[in-house]
Amino acid sequence: MMASSGLSFENPVFAAYASYASLVVLKMFFVALYTTHTRFRVGVFANSEDVKGNKGAVARLDNPDVERVRRLHRNDLENIPAFLVVGLLYVLTGPSPGVAVWHFRVFAASRCLHTVSYLASRQPHRVLCFSAGLLTTISMAVHVLMVGTL
Amino acid sequence: MMASSGLSFENPVFAAYASYASLVVLKMFFVALYTTHTRFRVGVFANSEDVKGNKGAVARLDNPDVERVRRLHRNDLENIPAFLVVGLLYVLTGPSPGVAVWHFRVFAASRCLHTVSYLASRQPHRVLCFSAGLLTTISMAVHVLMVGTL
Amino acid sequence: MMASSGLSFENPVFAAYASYASLVVLKMFFVALYTTHTRFRVGVFANSEDVKGNKGAVARLDNPDVERVRRLHRNDLENIPAFLVVGLLYVLTGPSPGVAVWHFRVFAASRCLHTVSYLASRQPHRVLCFSAGLLTTISMAVHVLMVGTL
Repeated sequence: MMASSGLSFENPVFAAYASYASLVVLKMFFVALYTTHTRFRVGVFANSEDVKGNKGAVARLDNPDVERVRRLHRNDLENIPAFLVVGLLYVLTGPSPGVAVWHFRVFAASRCLHTVSYLASRQPHRVLCFSAGLLTTISMAVHVLMVGTL
Repeated sequence: MMASSGLSFENPVFAAYASYASLVVLKMFFVALYTTHTRFRVGVFANSEDVKGNKGAVARLDNPDVERVRRLHRNDLENIPAFLVVGLLYVLTGPSPGVAVWHFRVFAASRCLHTVSYLASRQPHRVLCFSAGLLTTISMAVHVLMVGTL
Repeated sequence: MMASSGLSFENPVFAAYASYASLVVLKMFFVALYTTHTRFRVGVFANSEDVKGNKGAVARLDNPDVERVRRLHRNDLENIPAFLVVGLLYVLTGPSPGVAVWHFRVFAASRCLHTVSYLASRQPHRVLCFSAGLLTTISMAVHVLMVGTL
């Protein structure tokens, strides 16, 4: 095994994967903080202890703006951790660097644009971005399945 | 370190882990798509932009069929990403191949049957499947903790 | 590549990461089981098949005690899988062992204290614990981005 074929930053495929993985995690954390930002903007929080000393704020679970951000965040949770692990396994199959890096780029771009489309209530942009990210991860998972053994 | 003991497809334990990991991710994506299928079947969507041009569809958050699929999906999110990472760390402890592969098989089978049990509203099948998957992951996590150092 | 610099339990940074990773997964599973415990205590379940033969229990989605545990659990899902993967990539950047191990310790401690603060309805303790865990993961993700290549 050469140093440049496994999980090492000397392997350009791994170095690309690691960067895009960190990028989508940071994007997901942006959504977490955007939820808090939205809660303060509309003055609606989930827990009674969150509204103390926060004049005019109420504890309720049904603000449409907050719930939109939370649905978007949940969609991230349904897709990003799966990408993070499947992407790592895919790196270890020794894929063609060009093909691999484009998988990572399409996934990262589609999740960033999915976030924008969701916040802007834009369809069919949102479903197209979701599908692109899903298909990228499915493509990598199928590749891993073909190399692995059940 | 031999090529066949670490994160390499030449290591049969890793090759098995990678395949079962991909399999449960694909199963989880099936649930994501099944949510969409259920939304179209009952005509209930979460966002107002999703119902445009979709005759008879409404934007609401409380359809029991959709919420059942979403609860099942959330249960996946609570269990599958944990398995994916703990399983990888467990491979690196150099476990007995037979024991390791059975951990992966029991987890994958229990999550597939959990999905079926949830959709069919079957108890105690569902709780038994949930418990089998949880115990498998706990067993691997304890094994990692015993080899690692805090 | 020395045996002690990559994903091997001979690498003290990896051995520490693997242990703290397993620890936070077990903590997250405690929350899953605590949800079930709370459901039995208050007699409120999410599915109609869960209340059969369970005298006095009802199937509803709005018990405040159950929903508090579920919000806490969801916060775990938003933070722990991200830590698990970013932490692994961070180990591979070859960080200073002392700095790295403190990242893992702060994350694990902050998530345990976050759980306690959430269940005890304590602010600002909860937000401080959440922030400590988030900042630790962001710090590691930025480190990975600086070593990797987009």
